[in-house]
Amino acid sequence: MPLIKNAWYCAAWSETLTRQPMQRKFLGDTIVLYRTERGDPVALSNRCPHRFAPMHKGCLKGDDIECPYHGLRFDATGRCVHNPHGDGHIPKAAQLKSYPLFERDGIVWIWMGDPERADPATVLDSQYTAFVRDAKTFAVGFGDLQVKANYLLVMDNLLDLTHAPYVHPNTVGGRPEDSIQGGMHVGFEEDEQSVTSTYFVPDMPPTPQLQPLFPLPAGDFRIHMRWQPSSALAMRLTMTPPGQPDGSGVVLPLLHLLTPIDESHTHYFFALARNVAIDVPAAHEAMMEFARRAFEEEDEPMIAACQEQMGTTDLFSLKPVLLQTDVASVKARRRVDALVQQEGR
Amino acid sequence: MPLIKNAWYCAAWSETLTRQPMQRKFLGDTIVLYRTERGDPVALSNRCPHRFAPMHKGCLKGDDIECPYHGLRFDATGRCVHNPHGDGHIPKAAQLKSYPLFERDGIVWIWMGDPERADPATVLDSQYTAFVRDAKTFAVGFGDLQVKANYLLVMDNLLDLTHAPYVHPNTVGGRPEDSIQGGMHVGFEEDEQSVTSTYFVPDMPPTPQLQPLFPLPAGDFRIHMRWQPSSALAMRLTMTPPGQPDGSGVVLPLLHLLTPIDESHTHYFFALARNVAIDVPAAHEAMMEFARRAFEEEDEPMIAACQEQMGTTDLFSLKPVLLQTDVASVKARRRVDALVQQEGR
Amino acid sequence: MPLIKNAWYCAAWSETLTRQPMQRKFLGDTIVLYRTERGDPVALSNRCPHRFAPMHKGCLKGDDIECPYHGLRFDATGRCVHNPHGDGHIPKAAQLKSYPLFERDGIVWIWMGDPERADPATVLDSQYTAFVRDAKTFAVGFGDLQVKANYLLVMDNLLDLTHAPYVHPNTVGGRPEDSIQGGMHVGFEEDEQSVTSTYFVPDMPPTPQLQPLFPLPAGDFRIHMRWQPSSALAMRLTMTPPGQPDGSGVVLPLLHLLTPIDESHTHYFFALARNVAIDVPAAHEAMMEFARRAFEEEDEPMIAACQEQMGTTDLFSLKPVLLQTDVASVKARRRVDALVQQEGR
Repeated sequence: MPLIKNAWYCAAWSETLTRQPMQRKFLGDTIVLYRTERGDPVALSNRCPHRFAPMHKGCLKGDDIECPYHGLRFDATGRCVHNPHGDGHIPKAAQLKSYPLFERDGIVWIWMGDPERADPATVLDSQYTAFVRDAKTFAVGFGDLQVKANYLLVMDNLLDLTHAPYVHPNTVGGRPEDSIQGGMHVGFEEDEQSVTSTYFVPDMPPTPQLQPLFPLPAGDFRIHMRWQPSSALAMRLTMTPPGQPDGSGVVLPLLHLLTPIDESHTHYFFALARNVAIDVPAAHEAMMEFARRAFEEEDEPMIAACQEQMGTTDLFSLKPVLLQTDVASVKARRRVDALVQQEGR
Repeated sequence: MPLIKNAWYCAAWSETLTRQPMQRKFLGDTIVLYRTERGDPVALSNRCPHRFAPMHKGCLKGDDIECPYHGLRFDATGRCVHNPHGDGHIPKAAQLKSYPLFERDGIVWIWMGDPERADPATVLDSQYTAFVRDAKTFAVGFGDLQVKANYLLVMDNLLDLTHAPYVHPNTVGGRPEDSIQGGMHVGFEEDEQSVTSTYFVPDMPPTPQLQPLFPLPAGDFRIHMRWQPSSALAMRLTMTPPGQPDGSGVVLPLLHLLTPIDESHTHYFFALARNVAIDVPAAHEAMMEFARRAFEEEDEPMIAACQEQMGTTDLFSLKPVLLQTDVASVKARRRVDALVQQEGR
Repeated sequence: MPLIKNAWYCAAWSETLTRQPMQRKFLGDTIVLYRTERGDPVALSNRCPHRFAPMHKGCLKGDDIECPYHGLRFDATGRCVHNPHGDGHIPKAAQLKSYPLFERDGIVWIWMGDPERADPATVLDSQYTAFVRDAKTFAVGFGDLQVKANYLLVMDNLLDLTHAPYVHPNTVGGRPEDSIQGGMHVGFEEDEQSVTSTYFVPDMPPTPQLQPLFPLPAGDFRIHMRWQPSSALAMRLTMTPPGQPDGSGVVLPLLHLLTPIDESHTHYFFALARNVAIDVPAAHEAMMEFARRAFEEEDEPMIAACQEQMGTTDLFSLKPVLLQTDVASVKARRRVDALVQQEGR
């Protein structure tokens, strides 16, 4: 299935984008990312128009980037501004494609489609991302990984968290008897912008593996996983002492931002925050290692294995058996289908 | 050339199939194999019909296998018997394809085609396999390897053993002057069911490399290599003291069972037995290591190199030069062609 | 773009071709190369016509080569001369394709096209290659490497040496301020047979990295890089004391011979000679290591990266921006286009 081009995608966590040019592939295009001396993010085609050398192997000269093969220089808008050879003539076509960027809340967003339509007003609302910069309330950690699968398979994974006790029994998943069989209620919500899957377990014993990190008594366990096209998932996990209002206990906001590399590979960016043990470095290390293991060593191999079994065939063409727990992901996929069709017109 | 689906293929040596689910790919299908608590072999599609997760990574719950992604359970017939989520509703389509199996003489046979036609009466006759379980007469060893070539190239290799002194000079092949140029007579036999190539060298000096294993005087050397469609080769090698009847000396029965993984990869199962030095563990180790080296380090690279040179083109389309020694393999290939055509109708 | 078949290509440096059969792939054909007992070079198809085994894994028996699979023997013209099996009958079609070779000045040239048209008179003229055997005047070193790119991208690299200070700043490239910006004049010449790019820098400081090898004062720096279809580049680099005639100082003749492996891989043969420090082994080692690093670790990755960015699309189809410094390579490519069209007719 084609990818949606006219959308904002996460290009990088702000803190990972520096003066060192960095290569990334999004929606099939190879891109070089760097910052100007003032700190503004830049995204240009990574392919020199002269001999197609990879720009990210070149040096920055001020705000310009120099081709590593023959030394042509391009400014931050992609215009060639220097040809060191002969009379220095610069052909008009000497231009790198420039991609619109928007940076807020520690996230660098990129627009891969028609630049005219790149409206920052359509970036994921700050209410879902502001926690990343809210250092008073939260401790935040970042990461990213590459998944050998179409981004919709990662979305499916995130919109149906009932996989947790099966895929993550030794990390974030806990035991089925505590969650799935512990009176868990799975629901979903939707509005014009989003589809959300919800999970509620009253009085759930805390996940044993998380105990050393967040020593908590049993409590009400809630997850909201909100998906917004094309591939931003804002998650909120709370553990609330019995009888208290949601949010009065542990609150873990998370972001899962999926950027298609191509139709069968995904760049998966994640941020994890917590309102407890904020100043405990050991808790931070442990939590990030926990997440890394869960995403890289448990989710990724499972999702990639599914993709491998599916080959290049689209999910619905394989006529999957659908369960009640698939409602959110199926609704999200239907919306993606509609957007793809709309973009195709 | 298409593969023959309606046939029994070796899926595993009995002793290698346990309660630990095992993944194998045969004729392009990915399969999970395991045993029930009673010991019956089970072969199911390895692809969960829900999200196409690989079943072999799941656990057994009694005789059922649990999907490692969301916990659906399927019984040994492939029927979904447990959905742990929500109200536990099980859609009718929640079913893993089940493959007919038949186990005898230490071999688990699988039928990849139309289950209605899976008749155990058509399994390779026990007269060719019974030696595997005849511990009084023989010592037996097992092995298997994957060959990067179409199964017919492996069959060609086995039906023309004149390659032995060239490919296996330091293991099982001996010297050309002892065999090929030592008055060897190559023949073939055929009946409705099979094609057999035969080799006879009167009074051949024993293969020097085998001497430490089977210290024998010179004798009559005979091999019968019987092929039966689609890919079972029963071999019998004898070394008989001069003037004695065949079988009165050393007898080595072997099985070579070829199961196509896909059109360019083969799962090659072999069993080797001997009626001498039965209780000598060192002889056993040496013989198995000998066979492993011959098959894995000598035959496999040669067959794979031929496949690589041939690309995906069928042998006959490349118009090979044919020698008298190709008669058996050409006859076998003609039968395979006929079976493929018959199956295509 | 198709490859030119009717042309002489370098198959090997003479000194690397021995009695040990060697496999090489040129223009998509897999070839076995060896020498007869008298020392004549032989090039045959590496694919036995019987079962397509790779001939280079076989042994030489005198001037004949024996197939490693079933022992057929072929003479140096490719004719099958021995079948060890049965009555020894040799089918007429048992023949390995033989490729015309021509050896001179330490180079073994091969003709991949119509043997009727293989005229040694069209081999690269000895005036460009004689230095290889001129041990009185020059010390010579040889090498070869495989480039993951179409041979024309390697030709482009060599016909536009303005890449040197960017790609080779720490080896053979020197500093842009000494060459590109030091008053360098880039020119080109052409005649019916060839296209040549020329570089001249008056009074250039010597490349610092070369100083330990050739301690020279500043001087006039000249390069002639002469390309002749389809892919032979004869280079001459001189560093001449100011006011003296070209050739009176350091003279470095080089050969770059490009043989397409297939459309996206190239076998790159190079020879480097120098008329200074001829008898200094350390200078030799240092110079060859210098060249190896420049070609293998700097040029090859850059050219391969360009090829990767271009995919399988032809250069001109991608509408590259062209600079004045591309004149020679564009002219050479136009000639290649004409030859390809001519061969297609």
